[in-house]
Amino acid sequence: MPLLPRRFERLRTVLNQRMADLTVLVEHVEKPHNLSAILRSCDAVGVLEAHAVSFSGRPRTFNSTAQGSQRWVPLRDHATIASAVHHLKDRGFKLYGTNLGVDARDYRDCDFTGPCAFVLGAEKWGLTEEATGLMDQAVFIPMRGMVQSLNVSVATATLLFEALRQRQAAGVAPHNGEGIPAEQYGDLLFEWAYP
Amino acid sequence: MPLLPRRFERLRTVLNQRMADLTVLVEHVEKPHNLSAILRSCDAVGVLEAHAVSFSGRPRTFNSTAQGSQRWVPLRDHATIASAVHHLKDRGFKLYGTNLGVDARDYRDCDFTGPCAFVLGAEKWGLTEEATGLMDQAVFIPMRGMVQSLNVSVATATLLFEALRQRQAAGVAPHNGEGIPAEQYGDLLFEWAYP
Ligand SMILES: C[S@@+](CC[C@H](N)C(=O)[O-])C[C@H]1O[C@@H](n2cnc3c(N)ncnc32)[C@H](O)[C@@H]1O
Ligand SMILES: C[S@@+](CC[C@H](N)C(=O)[O-])C[C@H]1O[C@@H](n2cnc3c(N)ncnc32)[C@H](O)[C@@H]1O
Repeated sequence: MPLLPRRFERLRTVLNQRMADLTVLVEHVEKPHNLSAILRSCDAVGVLEAHAVSFSGRPRTFNSTAQGSQRWVPLRDHATIASAVHHLKDRGFKLYGTNLGVDARDYRDCDFTGPCAFVLGAEKWGLTEEATGLMDQAVFIPMRGMVQSLNVSVATATLLFEALRQRQAAGVAPHNGEGIPAEQYGDLLFEWAYP
Repeated sequence: MPLLPRRFERLRTVLNQRMADLTVLVEHVEKPHNLSAILRSCDAVGVLEAHAVSFSGRPRTFNSTAQGSQRWVPLRDHATIASAVHHLKDRGFKLYGTNLGVDARDYRDCDFTGPCAFVLGAEKWGLTEEATGLMDQAVFIPMRGMVQSLNVSVATATLLFEALRQRQAAGVAPHNGEGIPAEQYGDLLFEWAYP
């Protein structure tokens, strides 16, 4: 079936706002509704692709909470946290490890306008010690309540929307495809249009 | 069992930051993990109590995502959206109805430093027409992706954290109990300490 011009325009508009230099890495986040909500927020903010380290062997599942966002934000699997971090550092990402401890920095005091990856931990345990040791900067979202942490998909969205806010304020949120490498643009548009 | 002094101090610190003039009203949000994540975010931001209209007869359920926040943020049930809105308007709240339509205002362009209630809709359908008609202001969170909406608990948290940010920036986020009526403070502290 031929692609309707309106649909093609919509794909282009969305792709034109994608950011290859903003991403998340989730470590052992296994609940389908959390993972689904995370990808959906990535799509909404304009993340080009997301990353995950999972307990080996478990197939990934999404549910209706994703609303199909897994089609628009590929989730790249990594075997270990070390290889995931290596992959991201190689590409110039600064790694922000979420951490509820005292040494972490308030997320509003960080500069997220450069290449950055937010690293989120498991629902029960948070980031592993190994992951924590590999981060460039520990960040947290200050909380004023009795409960010690936020839901992981809520924390992810809060960080992503803050990054987007900063980029918009700085005038560096892309609008014309400048957020993705020129040589990838055509391939991506083709993939999106003819999956 | 007597209350440990440290515990009592913690309860007081949290209560001192509670805001009676910031709340959410959820209309037919029924998934336990969404409702749970919403209450958890309310607790984290400092909402004193939350409100809900639900399909009549269904008992409310929370799951582990709540992390016990339902104990710290009472969810007040209303039989109809009209009675819920009436209750809130009577208490001086301005009602912000989430709405993905064209006439809604960008949430970053709204002033949330005064008494405000965010009204969130069902996972599938969004706010009912009746609810939409009763709102003071339509708001939305701009999105740059293919999927048309955010997960409802993510949207709630995004609005609440923006309200908190604005109140902190304006120096009106409470720290010494000034966010709750003086005559309620003692009772609340007692309830929290000896449930
Ligand atoms: C439910 S929390 C894990 C709680 C765990 N008990 C701990 O102490 O880390 C799951 C993940 O959500 C994210 N998260 C939750 N609250 C956060 C906050 N206030 N700031 C930053 N990240 C947070 C972190 O990535 C965390 O690893
Ligand atoms: C999944 S959405 C409902 C989608 C529904 N198809 C619609 O068109 O309204 C569930 C609720 O999340 C909230 N929500 C989701 N995305 C939002 C956004 N971008 N801005 C404001 N609220 C949003 C609204 O309260 C909405 O009623």
